[in-house]
Amino acid sequence: MGKVYLIGAGPGAADLITVRGARLLGMADVVLHDALVEPEMLEYAPHARKIAVGKRCGRRSTAQQFINKQIVDAARAHSCVVRLKGGDPMLFGRADEEMRALEEAGIEYEVVPGITAALAAASAVKRSLTLRGVARSVALATRSRAADTQEIREQVNADSLVFYMGRDSAPEIAQQLIDAGRPAATPVAIVEACSTPRERTLTLTLEALAMGEAQQWLDPQQPSLLMIGEAFAERVPAGKPEQAQVGDAPRAGMRHAA
Amino acid sequence: MGKVYLIGAGPGAADLITVRGARLLGMADVVLHDALVEPEMLEYAPHARKIAVGKRCGRRSTAQQFINKQIVDAARAHSCVVRLKGGDPMLFGRADEEMRALEEAGIEYEVVPGITAALAAASAVKRSLTLRGVARSVALATRSRAADTQEIREQVNADSLVFYMGRDSAPEIAQQLIDAGRPAATPVAIVEACSTPRERTLTLTLEALAMGEAQQWLDPQQPSLLMIGEAFAERVPAGKPEQAQVGDAPRAGMRHAA
Repeated sequence: MGKVYLIGAGPGAADLITVRGARLLGMADVVLHDALVEPEMLEYAPHARKIAVGKRCGRRSTAQQFINKQIVDAARAHSCVVRLKGGDPMLFGRADEEMRALEEAGIEYEVVPGITAALAAASAVKRSLTLRGVARSVALATRSRAADTQEIREQVNADSLVFYMGRDSAPEIAQQLIDAGRPAATPVAIVEACSTPRERTLTLTLEALAMGEAQQWLDPQQPSLLMIGEAFAERVPAGKPEQAQVGDAPRAGMRHAA
Repeated sequence: MGKVYLIGAGPGAADLITVRGARLLGMADVVLHDALVEPEMLEYAPHARKIAVGKRCGRRSTAQQFINKQIVDAARAHSCVVRLKGGDPMLFGRADEEMRALEEAGIEYEVVPGITAALAAASAVKRSLTLRGVARSVALATRSRAADTQEIREQVNADSLVFYMGRDSAPEIAQQLIDAGRPAATPVAIVEACSTPRERTLTLTLEALAMGEAQQWLDPQQPSLLMIGEAFAERVPAGKPEQAQVGDAPRAGMRHAA
């Protein structure tokens, strides 16, 4: 029986995987990877058989149970099996199902964390998710179309909010946050295809997001992340009055960066 | 004028830095690192001058303004300067102050994300922060002694809660969460010195945490992370009735793991 490593590939760029993750890929006999993982990442595993499994935005994904079976079968035939997942395995990664399947099959495994998109996106836009005197907490969430304002208000709250997979419901998310009391002028930063050559960023206000102003800009083929909160405002140079922050560019309108 | 890289060192283990971070350390002329960064991490930078700055639990830390000045001065004298920060720079890392200082000095910089402790701790205890049907959102927060129940209830809410630097106020945090409506039996996992040779984990209930049962176990010299929510319960093997989850071991008492 082999050992399985559930490894977080990080946000996309091949060099944003951990040193440990890259080393284990080099030792792997088999790599079962998400379709979202960038091809360059697989070059760390020159000797391994690569099997694409799992999710891709807007395309049909391999059923989780079949993925679990593939991992268990691979561990019965090979000594080093890597399950490579986009982002971090423990955050919106369905790792629980895979860990459970491995435990039930009596297969040894280890989890290697990865850079989750929220961290990479904050680096990309050069805004700290937490900010002294402004943001002391961060919530990471996904959003189903069915969820209502009540849920947004009562179930998810923090100074900075990051929504994964929120592209299609972005206007609803924004409107519900306004209804729940967030100021319409709250800054929003959107990062698409974070850390890949296709990375793009957009800053706008919560109100503009609610009015659907980001929807045409967003590419349905790419993963995107919504970051909402005062922490995502433009930095005001020292010396400028505090008041200047309120009428700042990204809150008043919309800016693009390639 | 040189370029500055604000790099997340990750939770502790030298091989949990990103490949990009390790490569940039190898190119660095100067590395200004947090005292919390493990010594092995600095071996990636054999040629660099190493300067310890910043925080260490329970010890006096270099004032942030002096750190900013050291970074700017280093960039004026060297072409490649690394500011190495524990965890991720954008989460409880005071990156904003440093980015602002660099922008005001007109110095080019880049941010390289790091594995934040919450992700590494979830890997360590093999519990996913999000869990289908159980936990759809995660809040990352710190806790000051001054904050009250009102703040816990209204400012920080999600299915899974992770508190950084919450050691000393752990009983208060737990009691306030119970007062705010979280069940007393909610599972809690504490991970200390995550990913280092000193790593230890403890699981208990929110009620036991409120009663101070973790305080003697906790080492004031080590960083620790509190993870609170149903996602941190023991996994119930398939076939067992759902009900079994409620009376599960980690909720009833306290368990240690070395």
